[in-house]
Amino acid sequence: MDTISVDFGGTFIKIGLIRDGHVADFTDTPSYSGKGLTPRLAVVETIVAELLEKNAMTAGELNGIGIAIPGLVDATEKRVLSTNAKYNDAINFSFTRWVDKTFNVPFIIENDARAALAGEVFHGGAQGSEDAVMMIFGTGIGTAAMINGQLLRGKHHQAGVLGGHFITDHAGYMCTCGNKGCVEAQASNWSLPIVARERAGFNKSRLADADHVDYKSVVENARAGDDFSESFLEDLIEHWAAGLTNLVHAYDPSTVILSGGLMKSKDYLLPKIKARVLERTWTPWGQPEFLAAEKPEHSVLLGLHHLTVTEYRKTKGVL
Amino acid sequence: MDTISVDFGGTFIKIGLIRDGHVADFTDTPSYSGKGLTPRLAVVETIVAELLEKNAMTAGELNGIGIAIPGLVDATEKRVLSTNAKYNDAINFSFTRWVDKTFNVPFIIENDARAALAGEVFHGGAQGSEDAVMMIFGTGIGTAAMINGQLLRGKHHQAGVLGGHFITDHAGYMCTCGNKGCVEAQASNWSLPIVARERAGFNKSRLADADHVDYKSVVENARAGDDFSESFLEDLIEHWAAGLTNLVHAYDPSTVILSGGLMKSKDYLLPKIKARVLERTWTPWGQPEFLAAEKPEHSVLLGLHHLTVTEYRKTKGVL
Repeated sequence: MDTISVDFGGTFIKIGLIRDGHVADFTDTPSYSGKGLTPRLAVVETIVAELLEKNAMTAGELNGIGIAIPGLVDATEKRVLSTNAKYNDAINFSFTRWVDKTFNVPFIIENDARAALAGEVFHGGAQGSEDAVMMIFGTGIGTAAMINGQLLRGKHHQAGVLGGHFITDHAGYMCTCGNKGCVEAQASNWSLPIVARERAGFNKSRLADADHVDYKSVVENARAGDDFSESFLEDLIEHWAAGLTNLVHAYDPSTVILSGGLMKSKDYLLPKIKARVLERTWTPWGQPEFLAAEKPEHSVLLGLHHLTVTEYRKTKGVL
Repeated sequence: MDTISVDFGGTFIKIGLIRDGHVADFTDTPSYSGKGLTPRLAVVETIVAELLEKNAMTAGELNGIGIAIPGLVDATEKRVLSTNAKYNDAINFSFTRWVDKTFNVPFIIENDARAALAGEVFHGGAQGSEDAVMMIFGTGIGTAAMINGQLLRGKHHQAGVLGGHFITDHAGYMCTCGNKGCVEAQASNWSLPIVARERAGFNKSRLADADHVDYKSVVENARAGDDFSESFLEDLIEHWAAGLTNLVHAYDPSTVILSGGLMKSKDYLLPKIKARVLERTWTPWGQPEFLAAEKPEHSVLLGLHHLTVTEYRKTKGVL
């Protein structure tokens, strides 16, 4: 089956032609997500047309299109319920009208982290797992949960995806969501500069000389032996482990998948994070498996493919 | 339908004859749960026999028996997976053999908080709700979650019931579960004395003169104007609100039910806790309803009745 996946990410929009669970062709383009979704739709339409032409296909030959949005998404009504500083105009946008008019094929829409989890479970490193959670360390921290082979969605479409906004420090930093002490507000790429600068010793640390305070510079300076960065990273690992412990306690997974920019240092970080989580979790049945996403660049696209194909089969009554 | 419910609580074993969703007859007996389950089974058998005789019934006329245990329970295999200082011998105990030999009727077994949530949803104050979470403030803090009318259980039977062990202060107090900073370790009846005594000003407070430091004495002294107790209670409310925020973010409920000893002060506390949770939660769809359990003394028994009747209907093919 052939589908188009469009991942509206915070920094890039990724567009792929996906064939039977593999990325057959792929393009990305800057998203300027702070300025909204609609200004970028013409570019998306052009890229999709180019991808199809390059692969000698017409839109009518597609089994469908999948769209991922970083926000709360009602997959049933196919609309965006809430965003946080990215693509704010998506809330009032009719994706149904746009897809019907532009492509006239079946489509699905889903939260990006849910799509990423589906991608890793059905076409990535977690194949065979039916009970999994994912934590994606990007600008913020996205999460998703699957129980018994089904993405957890909940009554108002927000179950599983708010793990970055579980509180791990009730007296901690203010979050952009309005809550206080979310794991995202303590230990994500957007919050690291705020947290680091308020920490004693920052000005004398090597981190103060870095161009950006982010996952990359903290890990690099910690590994290079900068005392401040080492102790800061230790604290961050505690926060991430606390966040993951809450996911394990909430959703009872067999598999825990970590993804996002932080996992560029997976060889260094994953064993440390895993050890802390296992110290904290109460899982008398055994231990969940810990994986870094196998296809972090494409897991959203692959997950959208799975969801689009599933929708196609359901609609057409095809097995 | 007539069922027997047996709620093996930490302090009391409650036994009820439940008829069509109402407690027809009821007895309780001390549990001495630290000494295990098996020493109390003879007493349970006697009480059940007495209840039946008093109501002119035989065991054979029952539609089944429901059993609740404070621990991780595999409802499918009908065994207890893990306990925490209460009824530790339940882990190796064959409830199937005991019920078959003693009563010879169908039975179910479930975690006590899950049963309590089912009781409130099907026979208590939350009737009509299909998406609900419950937090029970007892010696520890028990929780349960329901999504789309189904109790959430998860792959290893622990989804929903570990909300007391979500971390709300990653650098907080050690918990009996081995984790650190669980909401239960910061703000439950067993942890209050530890937390209070380490807090500056305790020795000069009125709380220091109380027989016990517990929910009751903290609330009473706070309401009587003791400065220490007031500020301590404020902090506890923050912890409870953080724990409930995590439940709302995890399970996306329409209804939040609070129960347990703390809710003896529901008129005073529930509005305060609710306000804090609503400040913290990200729920663009609206606001969940907050309720104190309508039948806190009997919600476990009524939930067991629901689960037993459901099992009976399934087994017998009766609608």
